[in-house]
Amino acid sequence: MTNKIDNDSQLSIVNYQLNICIVGVGLIGGSFALTAKQKGIAKHIIGVCNREETKQKVLELELVDEVLPLEEAIKKSDLIYVAIPVDITVSVMQTIMDLVNDKQIVVDAGSTKFVLCEALKNHPMRKRFVATHPMWGTEYSGPEAAVKDAFIGRACVICEKNKSDEQAVAIVENIYKELGMHLVYMESEAHDMHAAYVSHISHITSFALANTVLEKEKEEDAIFELAGGGFESTVRLAKSNPAMWAPIFMQNRENVLDVLNEHISQLRKFKSALEKENLNYLNELMENANKIKRILK
Amino acid sequence: MTNKIDNDSQLSIVNYQLNICIVGVGLIGGSFALTAKQKGIAKHIIGVCNREETKQKVLELELVDEVLPLEEAIKKSDLIYVAIPVDITVSVMQTIMDLVNDKQIVVDAGSTKFVLCEALKNHPMRKRFVATHPMWGTEYSGPEAAVKDAFIGRACVICEKNKSDEQAVAIVENIYKELGMHLVYMESEAHDMHAAYVSHISHITSFALANTVLEKEKEEDAIFELAGGGFESTVRLAKSNPAMWAPIFMQNRENVLDVLNEHISQLRKFKSALEKENLNYLNELMENANKIKRILK
Repeated sequence: MTNKIDNDSQLSIVNYQLNICIVGVGLIGGSFALTAKQKGIAKHIIGVCNREETKQKVLELELVDEVLPLEEAIKKSDLIYVAIPVDITVSVMQTIMDLVNDKQIVVDAGSTKFVLCEALKNHPMRKRFVATHPMWGTEYSGPEAAVKDAFIGRACVICEKNKSDEQAVAIVENIYKELGMHLVYMESEAHDMHAAYVSHISHITSFALANTVLEKEKEEDAIFELAGGGFESTVRLAKSNPAMWAPIFMQNRENVLDVLNEHISQLRKFKSALEKENLNYLNELMENANKIKRILK
Repeated sequence: MTNKIDNDSQLSIVNYQLNICIVGVGLIGGSFALTAKQKGIAKHIIGVCNREETKQKVLELELVDEVLPLEEAIKKSDLIYVAIPVDITVSVMQTIMDLVNDKQIVVDAGSTKFVLCEALKNHPMRKRFVATHPMWGTEYSGPEAAVKDAFIGRACVICEKNKSDEQAVAIVENIYKELGMHLVYMESEAHDMHAAYVSHISHITSFALANTVLEKEKEEDAIFELAGGGFESTVRLAKSNPAMWAPIFMQNRENVLDVLNEHISQLRKFKSALEKENLNYLNELMENANKIKRILK
């Protein structure tokens, strides 16, 4: 293992030329790999893949330079980047943390943070772990979904910063900045609550909206000739991978239920306005919703 | 008024060079005007605008060649294209139909069709009216929102085709085809039901989702630093204009309520799966939703 990252006098990532191991070379891991190589953050990228066909695929797509088993990959890496479904992350991360030394950095990119941070809080190497959530994604998954220039302009949350080694955090911060992200700091509980509002609920409403329309389609085929732009944008997340999202919803169950209850109650207000033919109330609800312009450009 | 359109031997629109009057030069009317001029469908375009500032704006933006009062504009036009909020459409259309002769064509572009078709069904000039719904739009409104190359690749619904003059329908069909749309034919009741599923409900869920998040924002500002791609795409319709959408929801109240009830019941399934920590059911719901891939490219 190279020891470039213990030279803390120079934090410009371009000089690091790190050996990076990507555990889970899919949408997030693959996009991270592509950009890290392109930006000169990574000198050498090792992929760790579960399935035989994925190993072939990630090499063909040139997302990584080589594919190795986890233990071997870790030995050769300065930084280990974990981007697998959040339920598997908890156990895989335990294995990884048991293998790293005090010069290596472990980063995860999962959409939930509390369960993982809790699981690792007493690990002797806890300080080598930086908990992050780069808030970018698409409805696609797997190595074919990886794209260059992902992450740009999006927020990356770093959780429980004070539990990680200062220099490890600084390096991870610099990497995400190089990728074009702005950083937000939160405790893991706060992250999970916010993520429920700005990401998890959007996926649930999309899934539910798709099911609403598909339910009707049993009776009527014509619907599909009409699907236009507005429909596409509200329903596209319904194409997302259940293997990725079910564990997120389960780990963040309480927050997601809170938001889901609030959302159902907001929908009921529209229902009530329509049932009572209350045009003023309907307008009031929509005018309030228009305030979202403050946030969306 | 020129009588180009009674020469039915040649239906190629490019040869028509119509005088077109646009009643309501906003997102839809303005985009129609731009493209009609660009494609050589229109020789001369007259705007009819309600508000003084809009008159200036549509001339400045070169959406129309001149702005005239409704009656004068109709006299000079082969085709009258109505694109105003659906509640106002009903009364304005009565006025227009009373003014047109049996060579002129009246087209509306509203998002609901049943109430309007009912209102006009016994009008002596009914055959000069072609009821259409070009299924394109954005969350923006007004003349500044008009864009060239709108409509391309989208469906345009033509309702109650058999109640319109055959030649009038043929001309309108050709115009929409020139704009790059594919045509779908429906009775007005069927249209309104389908529109509730593929368009109106998407807007309601977006408005409600925005309200859900804004409700939370009262407590926590950090949410807004995190808003990313998925959130943007499911919430962007919440920026839509209440003055356009309230009348649509009210006119299509029964269908919208049906879909809204179904949607709430689909959301409750997710709620139940989470409450019972039923991972299999959760996966089942999402896998079913994934079938939407059949429809969305």
